[in-house]
Amino acid sequence: MCFNGSGYHGWQMQKNALSIEEILSSAILKITGEKSVITGCSRTDACVHALYYVCNFKSETSIPTEKIPLALNTALPDDIRVNRCAVLDDSFHARFSALSKTYIYKAYTARIANPFLKDFAYHFPYEIDFEKIKNAAAYFVGSHDFSAFMASGGSQKTTVRTVTELEVTRQGDEIHFTITADGYLYNMVRIIAGTLLYVGIGKIKSDEIPEIIKSGDRRRSGITAGAQGLYLARVVYPDSYGVFKDWPQGRL
Amino acid sequence: MCFNGSGYHGWQMQKNALSIEEILSSAILKITGEKSVITGCSRTDACVHALYYVCNFKSETSIPTEKIPLALNTALPDDIRVNRCAVLDDSFHARFSALSKTYIYKAYTARIANPFLKDFAYHFPYEIDFEKIKNAAAYFVGSHDFSAFMASGGSQKTTVRTVTELEVTRQGDEIHFTITADGYLYNMVRIIAGTLLYVGIGKIKSDEIPEIIKSGDRRRSGITAGAQGLYLARVVYPDSYGVFKDWPQGRL
Repeated sequence: MCFNGSGYHGWQMQKNALSIEEILSSAILKITGEKSVITGCSRTDACVHALYYVCNFKSETSIPTEKIPLALNTALPDDIRVNRCAVLDDSFHARFSALSKTYIYKAYTARIANPFLKDFAYHFPYEIDFEKIKNAAAYFVGSHDFSAFMASGGSQKTTVRTVTELEVTRQGDEIHFTITADGYLYNMVRIIAGTLLYVGIGKIKSDEIPEIIKSGDRRRSGITAGAQGLYLARVVYPDSYGVFKDWPQGRL
Repeated sequence: MCFNGSGYHGWQMQKNALSIEEILSSAILKITGEKSVITGCSRTDACVHALYYVCNFKSETSIPTEKIPLALNTALPDDIRVNRCAVLDDSFHARFSALSKTYIYKAYTARIANPFLKDFAYHFPYEIDFEKIKNAAAYFVGSHDFSAFMASGGSQKTTVRTVTELEVTRQGDEIHFTITADGYLYNMVRIIAGTLLYVGIGKIKSDEIPEIIKSGDRRRSGITAGAQGLYLARVVYPDSYGVFKDWPQGRL
């Protein structure tokens, strides 16, 4: 599935705010008559988007599997779309079975904001040095303790994560960060993006990054860049769950 | 200036609906203290966007011209941005001085809608024959009576317009129509886009287009494609108003 997160308080069901999980749960109830427990591949913050999102739930519906996306879409608002549906064995868990996740972070650096990107990119209206950002980005790849790039509030056992890709590209005034890791700490992508933007304007030096990572000190990294620039773009599962091979990766 | 038209009932001031002109007028009053009469380059329908829009008004403000965009932007909502401002002589009229206007029309043809394009492209979920569309598009170029591509409600003296460009491009599931003409009849671009989409699914044949143009019969052309896919992208003025040369054309 994919969703434009602008109008929602993130994936996760909450008491006093509208979540994507809640909306999907209502749609499932509407078309199958079943109350489901949905497992999502990732919690997302308010206003964060997903170009590719995977979740699982149990159902005994008689609706043919291939018809479920269209059926659910008739019951969903137009900022949430289900693209595919498949039957998997009980071992599958959208979150715990995931081997890696890819996020794209989009920043817009022109001086004057772009009205078309207000919900879709973080406006960072400064002249940036792209080469410095590229150099700094390379330091994040590998297995590191990412405590310096974590907001408080997480509940993880370890703060070590393995980043396998951090690509930075530029299209006109837009900067895109593409990051793949086995997992993420709370706000990790947004803090890494904010830190790299700070490198771009000279507030942090490229070669300070290894030291900042080592320090584990959140006060030394950059800002938490805005939620509206963050997109979940891909989730990779073991080959044994063959169905995902045909599912196109989300793209901007 | 540019604006995301999703939240507005078009450019033109109206009694019972919120327009971009009204919002801009309030912003001018706020920063200059002056009540202005604004002349826009084009009326636009509700939900239509502008990547590039020109308007003019008189002012005796002491704010330096180059500071007016930033000043106005502080008083405008984030879906409307002023990019440039220049002083021109009294002969300039944003609408009547225009030599040509370019619109881009964006359609999305994947079966399942894209939540990120709901306000920014017209969802036409059918398999289309791109070559047929390209062939049909060529027939529109030239000076024609475009009565068959006009909604009722216009008040023009003549229904002849000269189309100098109608380019069709494809990017994945998106189709973009780029049309340049000396002027447009009411809903002309949206009806041409709808007609070309009908050609794409075989409802109208490419070589019927000359006949449909000749007939002047609105019942023979295609649907009026949705307003959310329409973008004003460029307005060209005589070289004597030199300032516009430096103003970048709007792009998607």
